[in-house]
Amino acid sequence: MSSRIEKDTLGEMEVPSDAYYGAQTARALQNFPISGMKPHPAFVWATLIIKKCSAKSNMSTGRLADGIGNAIVAAADEALSGRMADQFVVDPFQAGAGTSHNMNVNEVLANRALELVGKQRGDFSLIHPNDHVNMAQSTNDVIPTAIRLAALEMLDPLLETLEGLELALADKAKEFDHILKSGRTHLQDAVPIRLGQEFGAYAVAVRKNREGLEACIPALLELGIGGTAVGTGLNAQPEFIQRMIQELAIATGFPVVASSDLFEAMQNMDPFLALSSSLRRTAVNLGRIANDLRLLSSGPRTGLDEIRLPAVQPGSSIMPGKINPSMAEMTNMVCFQVMGCDQAVMLASQAGQLELNVMMPLIAYNLTFSMELLKNCVQKFTASCIIGISANQERCRRYLEDSLGLVTVLAPFIGYNAAAEVAKESIATGRSIREIVLSRELMPEAELEEAMRPEHLTAPGLPLDEKHNQA
Amino acid sequence: MSSRIEKDTLGEMEVPSDAYYGAQTARALQNFPISGMKPHPAFVWATLIIKKCSAKSNMSTGRLADGIGNAIVAAADEALSGRMADQFVVDPFQAGAGTSHNMNVNEVLANRALELVGKQRGDFSLIHPNDHVNMAQSTNDVIPTAIRLAALEMLDPLLETLEGLELALADKAKEFDHILKSGRTHLQDAVPIRLGQEFGAYAVAVRKNREGLEACIPALLELGIGGTAVGTGLNAQPEFIQRMIQELAIATGFPVVASSDLFEAMQNMDPFLALSSSLRRTAVNLGRIANDLRLLSSGPRTGLDEIRLPAVQPGSSIMPGKINPSMAEMTNMVCFQVMGCDQAVMLASQAGQLELNVMMPLIAYNLTFSMELLKNCVQKFTASCIIGISANQERCRRYLEDSLGLVTVLAPFIGYNAAAEVAKESIATGRSIREIVLSRELMPEAELEEAMRPEHLTAPGLPLDEKHNQA
Amino acid sequence: MSSRIEKDTLGEMEVPSDAYYGAQTARALQNFPISGMKPHPAFVWATLIIKKCSAKSNMSTGRLADGIGNAIVAAADEALSGRMADQFVVDPFQAGAGTSHNMNVNEVLANRALELVGKQRGDFSLIHPNDHVNMAQSTNDVIPTAIRLAALEMLDPLLETLEGLELALADKAKEFDHILKSGRTHLQDAVPIRLGQEFGAYAVAVRKNREGLEACIPALLELGIGGTAVGTGLNAQPEFIQRMIQELAIATGFPVVASSDLFEAMQNMDPFLALSSSLRRTAVNLGRIANDLRLLSSGPRTGLDEIRLPAVQPGSSIMPGKINPSMAEMTNMVCFQVMGCDQAVMLASQAGQLELNVMMPLIAYNLTFSMELLKNCVQKFTASCIIGISANQERCRRYLEDSLGLVTVLAPFIGYNAAAEVAKESIATGRSIREIVLSRELMPEAELEEAMRPEHLTAPGLPLDEKHNQA
Amino acid sequence: MSSRIEKDTLGEMEVPSDAYYGAQTARALQNFPISGMKPHPAFVWATLIIKKCSAKSNMSTGRLADGIGNAIVAAADEALSGRMADQFVVDPFQAGAGTSHNMNVNEVLANRALELVGKQRGDFSLIHPNDHVNMAQSTNDVIPTAIRLAALEMLDPLLETLEGLELALADKAKEFDHILKSGRTHLQDAVPIRLGQEFGAYAVAVRKNREGLEACIPALLELGIGGTAVGTGLNAQPEFIQRMIQELAIATGFPVVASSDLFEAMQNMDPFLALSSSLRRTAVNLGRIANDLRLLSSGPRTGLDEIRLPAVQPGSSIMPGKINPSMAEMTNMVCFQVMGCDQAVMLASQAGQLELNVMMPLIAYNLTFSMELLKNCVQKFTASCIIGISANQERCRRYLEDSLGLVTVLAPFIGYNAAAEVAKESIATGRSIREIVLSRELMPEAELEEAMRPEHLTAPGLPLDEKHNQA
Repeated sequence: MSSRIEKDTLGEMEVPSDAYYGAQTARALQNFPISGMKPHPAFVWATLIIKKCSAKSNMSTGRLADGIGNAIVAAADEALSGRMADQFVVDPFQAGAGTSHNMNVNEVLANRALELVGKQRGDFSLIHPNDHVNMAQSTNDVIPTAIRLAALEMLDPLLETLEGLELALADKAKEFDHILKSGRTHLQDAVPIRLGQEFGAYAVAVRKNREGLEACIPALLELGIGGTAVGTGLNAQPEFIQRMIQELAIATGFPVVASSDLFEAMQNMDPFLALSSSLRRTAVNLGRIANDLRLLSSGPRTGLDEIRLPAVQPGSSIMPGKINPSMAEMTNMVCFQVMGCDQAVMLASQAGQLELNVMMPLIAYNLTFSMELLKNCVQKFTASCIIGISANQERCRRYLEDSLGLVTVLAPFIGYNAAAEVAKESIATGRSIREIVLSRELMPEAELEEAMRPEHLTAPGLPLDEKHNQA
Repeated sequence: MSSRIEKDTLGEMEVPSDAYYGAQTARALQNFPISGMKPHPAFVWATLIIKKCSAKSNMSTGRLADGIGNAIVAAADEALSGRMADQFVVDPFQAGAGTSHNMNVNEVLANRALELVGKQRGDFSLIHPNDHVNMAQSTNDVIPTAIRLAALEMLDPLLETLEGLELALADKAKEFDHILKSGRTHLQDAVPIRLGQEFGAYAVAVRKNREGLEACIPALLELGIGGTAVGTGLNAQPEFIQRMIQELAIATGFPVVASSDLFEAMQNMDPFLALSSSLRRTAVNLGRIANDLRLLSSGPRTGLDEIRLPAVQPGSSIMPGKINPSMAEMTNMVCFQVMGCDQAVMLASQAGQLELNVMMPLIAYNLTFSMELLKNCVQKFTASCIIGISANQERCRRYLEDSLGLVTVLAPFIGYNAAAEVAKESIATGRSIREIVLSRELMPEAELEEAMRPEHLTAPGLPLDEKHNQA
Repeated sequence: MSSRIEKDTLGEMEVPSDAYYGAQTARALQNFPISGMKPHPAFVWATLIIKKCSAKSNMSTGRLADGIGNAIVAAADEALSGRMADQFVVDPFQAGAGTSHNMNVNEVLANRALELVGKQRGDFSLIHPNDHVNMAQSTNDVIPTAIRLAALEMLDPLLETLEGLELALADKAKEFDHILKSGRTHLQDAVPIRLGQEFGAYAVAVRKNREGLEACIPALLELGIGGTAVGTGLNAQPEFIQRMIQELAIATGFPVVASSDLFEAMQNMDPFLALSSSLRRTAVNLGRIANDLRLLSSGPRTGLDEIRLPAVQPGSSIMPGKINPSMAEMTNMVCFQVMGCDQAVMLASQAGQLELNVMMPLIAYNLTFSMELLKNCVQKFTASCIIGISANQERCRRYLEDSLGLVTVLAPFIGYNAAAEVAKESIATGRSIREIVLSRELMPEAELEEAMRPEHLTAPGLPLDEKHNQA
Repeated sequence: MSSRIEKDTLGEMEVPSDAYYGAQTARALQNFPISGMKPHPAFVWATLIIKKCSAKSNMSTGRLADGIGNAIVAAADEALSGRMADQFVVDPFQAGAGTSHNMNVNEVLANRALELVGKQRGDFSLIHPNDHVNMAQSTNDVIPTAIRLAALEMLDPLLETLEGLELALADKAKEFDHILKSGRTHLQDAVPIRLGQEFGAYAVAVRKNREGLEACIPALLELGIGGTAVGTGLNAQPEFIQRMIQELAIATGFPVVASSDLFEAMQNMDPFLALSSSLRRTAVNLGRIANDLRLLSSGPRTGLDEIRLPAVQPGSSIMPGKINPSMAEMTNMVCFQVMGCDQAVMLASQAGQLELNVMMPLIAYNLTFSMELLKNCVQKFTASCIIGISANQERCRRYLEDSLGLVTVLAPFIGYNAAAEVAKESIATGRSIREIVLSRELMPEAELEEAMRPEHLTAPGLPLDEKHNQA
């Protein structure tokens, strides 16, 4: 592989001839062969957008010559279109604050801009990665801004898939609304519930997660760009900051605003921890739903078997015919991973020191990974599991009738203690609650039948006019 | 100690003669000698409020006789006034869902109500813990409602102490606004900043934590009371639910509303995890500030010594005269504990199964513990540390002048590469940046002086008309 | 309450007349009204032991006059006997490193020693908390040593209760060894297993947790005492260090040794994080077992109902006769708490800086809390749950016969694909596997019967001579 | 792209013509487009080794015809040599327990074996992925065995890099042994220490991490292979289990043994959580060392500047000449990630249910990721940071002389209180401790000089014959 020589302030570095990146990126590749991973495309996109908008802003303030600025904008547009996607190569585990990633982007754009104006790559006397592409910026304001933009960009499709899940669950709630079954609390027989009510609660829970994620957006829209190295804005003119916000709003479509405190915007990772916390809440909830579905579909012969999940693959390498709740299991694993990523984000967030939190690349990695995982997971979980769930109505009906929880219906009429005696006898003898109540003459048969009419059992209220109420 | 016999559906139990609690509480004491701790007063308060309001609501629907209902209300009022505070005794590590705690309160109120109507404790034929005190309720809707109310009750003073901290930091921001110093990023020399700007950023960060906590309130105000055992509301009349919400709003002053989905309100711990997440975010931020203060006050002779924290105690058992940042250290420890509690809340939240999350007592314990710790910590941290911080202006000035970050000011005029050469020479020789720039004739002296005037260095902008800009 | 005045190097403080503690403790009470909690008795015990042994060691090196030394020893003996237990009062959330706790103990012993030699409390010219009780020590070597000793002291009973649990599980393994049931993987029908095999695996798992905890002991036995303020041992004579180890070994019965690197022993919290990790592993495993037991005992009518857990309390405030797996639920909550404590320990462990980790009081609190909780939990879980478990043999047998997993037995003879077809038909039609195999003439009846004989199904091997094996 | 049709028990699937994998893998690709990642090579290696050894074992028991078995062995050998590395393609977020990964390997080997005997891919009547490649195995025993082998395989190089780090730190300890400086506790001036002593403590701490990791090996060597679907070993002959252990020992060189409880070995993830805990402990410690190095090298003008880390890249995009502690920062980020992975492993470990823990693929992913990260990080941290650290001896000496901690040396002679007064005066006036002691006539000059001789200050003992000791 042929190479050329580029220089940075530490000296010369060999870079591949066909690379657009330069010496600092080459140095980062040498320094950080850690995970072998590359930055998430959304993070690259966000950094490129910042570079393009800052070139435009610097031209508009008159600080950057149009010839240079337009070349940078053109290079950025090429990169945004996906060209040179293989040039953004720095490992997430890199120099603190993301200097290496920022310089990677600066170098690629400087070199491509040089080409566009007919110069050689590496000939930075005309267009310089630091002096021009990075003009009026610092890694320290670029990276937290880029994470915000990347997060906003990824939130949209994630919210959509969550809405899809919510709707699918709500559809199931309607489909199963007529199916009566026994509720279970503490995994023990409880009072009746409709299968649709269970799915309805899941739909509401997912909606709340969605709202929780949406609530993270305003803080993400507050950008500290223009704070430069420590938040003072040294080397960035006030007009630049205003222009940047306008340009970014146009380029991204997000209604971004300038942070009212550029120091805080640089050093405080709270908007990212807030987002991570909401992703974690989503994961906690999704995991709980997946657990419930795995439990309700357990069996078919040795479990609850109230519902059936669609078969997506043979379940076992040794047990023929076995079908497992694979999509729900995958969902559980994704949820655990999101919680693990959240742990890393929290640890990184608390490691800020003075003007800067140098752990930002870790935050970028974990947030984008979590959002990617969740989006893909929710999409498949919905499409390949939720919408195909069918109910085992017969089994649900049997549980409804057998459940010891039914005795609760009678407590308002015969009292808690007497009802408990009935339950105990039922457990001991296997006789039904109905039978025992009648044989003990605790209630007249007609009233008992009335009280236990299924339609009374799954909505607020006493299933009988309370003449027996002892109060 | 003399005792009496009480009964529950499992049989007889001995209880101390002077106890208001009954058999189920006694059973819980026997079953759960785990931590030796008692419930947080705010959690007891919340449960008592629910019992009082449900007695009133059940009277208003006509289901509960006034004689019984009023006695329960009177007993609850006594308990709310602090009488019988020693009667709420069940360990946080108890029966799933908090049945033991709920029955503890039911028993105390039933027994005290019996006394108030001239009956013996334990004579439950007239006033029964389950049939009357617990009428139209289940542990499963009482406990999540009680946690919501307890959290709301504790949020108020916590928000106040955070506001106190924010104001104290903002005061320091003003007090230190004129003190120029060197910023530090990556713990390395960076461009100038004013000490007041640092404290201002802390104040903003604390305000954001406060807002994050306030954002948790609406979800806490949505109550699932009336859902009874599984969320259907069986045994609770629709009018009861409406009345309960009204009574609770009156009794607590909180604008509570009925949840739109009683199933979800019972099984989904998201409002608690959201609160825990916001407490965690607060802890992450407070811990970061405490870390910074410890670093800035390090020394006095071998550290940064930019600020001095008030001395609150001799710092060492062996090193005489040593003063440590004890309040900041205590704050760090509280913050770590809050993160630990959050871990427990998250784990509990994901362990819900079907209609119920039986881990609620753990959530109640960790939320109340975290909020208690944070409130007390923030109050002391503010009063005994923040407001007494003084600045070492002379030291700050020295850092300002020495910092290699100053070279950044020149980069727009002489270019990044030339400026880097100056910095390198300064490190190698110890000569000042000013000296080197002049000796290398990189800028005329007058311009150099103008560019490096301190008043230019801590606000947005280029410190000089950019005629040297190579662009 | 009457009071007296005591002094420390920051000035005078009022202390209650009857208090043995002095000015620094009073200051700590004022500074740290955070959790309201006191130190765990084992931590107080450990600190007292260190003080007693250091007085003896300092006498033996000739540095401490016998009159003073013996008075300190006598005071420590009194305190160790439980007298003055109410004098150790500093909140766990206190000055970094535990200076306040160390001084609390120093002050109590100095004052009591003064009394024993006929002097007034507070008259430190003769016996001084720092110069004499704390002689040759620093908080920085005392506290990590005290945590080690406290942990060792608490490990013993914890290991015993775990052994009790292991034996109880092993007993159940024997008791249930003959009960055949269907295994479940992915919560789906799997091949047969014996109920006793399940309990046997739990017993082994608990044994491994026990061994994991025991493996933490050697590192806890390495003491850094004598390192004094930073690990150099300044102000502690080499003979003192040797004597201390001997005295501590005698006083505690633990085979303690001197750490080979006193710096590392002071600053590295790894032995505590190792212990916390092993407690966490125990919690993960116990929680898993509790989950399984709750699942296997689910029902009685709407769940698996393979086993029954002993009833320890009425399960519901609204559902009469309900019995919940309360001891298992309590166990789950304890396990989550231990994981939360572990999170705090980890965070504290990574917060060490240079010569010291000032977060040690938090580590002490969380380790002692976790160990206390686990010990009490395991004891009750064993006594009130495990030993009373009974099996529902009839239900197990039914699952055995119904399970689709049975088809696996046939795969070696008829091939995976053919066996899968049988399973599918069984699901579709409800016909038994036996029936379908015969009707499809996949195996001769005699061979089928032989292959499916229960005694073949729960041990390694092919249940039939493999003449049909296609290989 | 041309394709062919393969079949599994759910029906037909299109697979690329040149793929060795088959229908179930294709199904997994369709079902699990979640992270886009592939299994770690060590995990693939381990699974292949198992397949090869089981073919040999099954031949040796006579169950597998040599023609088939030898073809499978040959196919596995090819795969182990790296051929077909692109054929192992299932996302870590996949079907529970790793069925998809296991079938991926089964299919690739079956198809390649078919080719080797001159048959078509997909023609499974002769060599079947389940009946032959997976003979006597289940995903449920294969995957936990594969994770164990992969972990063992990756531990070796990790331990080596840690030893390299330990040695590098120990070298620095020697190199810096003569450099006296001030210790710091609570980040405040403390008594003297030698720079070499600090590095020595780091070396010891890393050694302990290494030992902690080594202590995980025995549990990893206990294999549950042969337990098949639920641990009973159904369909695996006893001789098979014995042969497998022998074959695996030969093939891997690891002294593996058969687990004494195949049930426990399948369902209990403790060996993995133990390993994860030890990785976490390593991360906690490495992170602490990286933090210390960043602090000690802070500056150069506005920080402690006691040591200098090698420059590995320009530190800032805006601040010319800035050099950051990039390798230490990368190390911190890796450490946080390892803690995040550990969180995921813990969550997965506790999610086992009954006979199986279906979250194993998540455990495999996080363990291999953590080990890969740590190995690469430690290698670079050692080579590009530790070995190049230089000391700023002059600065260290100045701190030594200035530190207020020096007064501690005098406390044994003049008492804690008098020494504290000296310290206070020194802070107030700026006069040196020496000066004040003499002016107050607290000690004769000769004794003072003797007591403060540097060579006395960093080793155990009193720096003076204790004639002034008040005791």
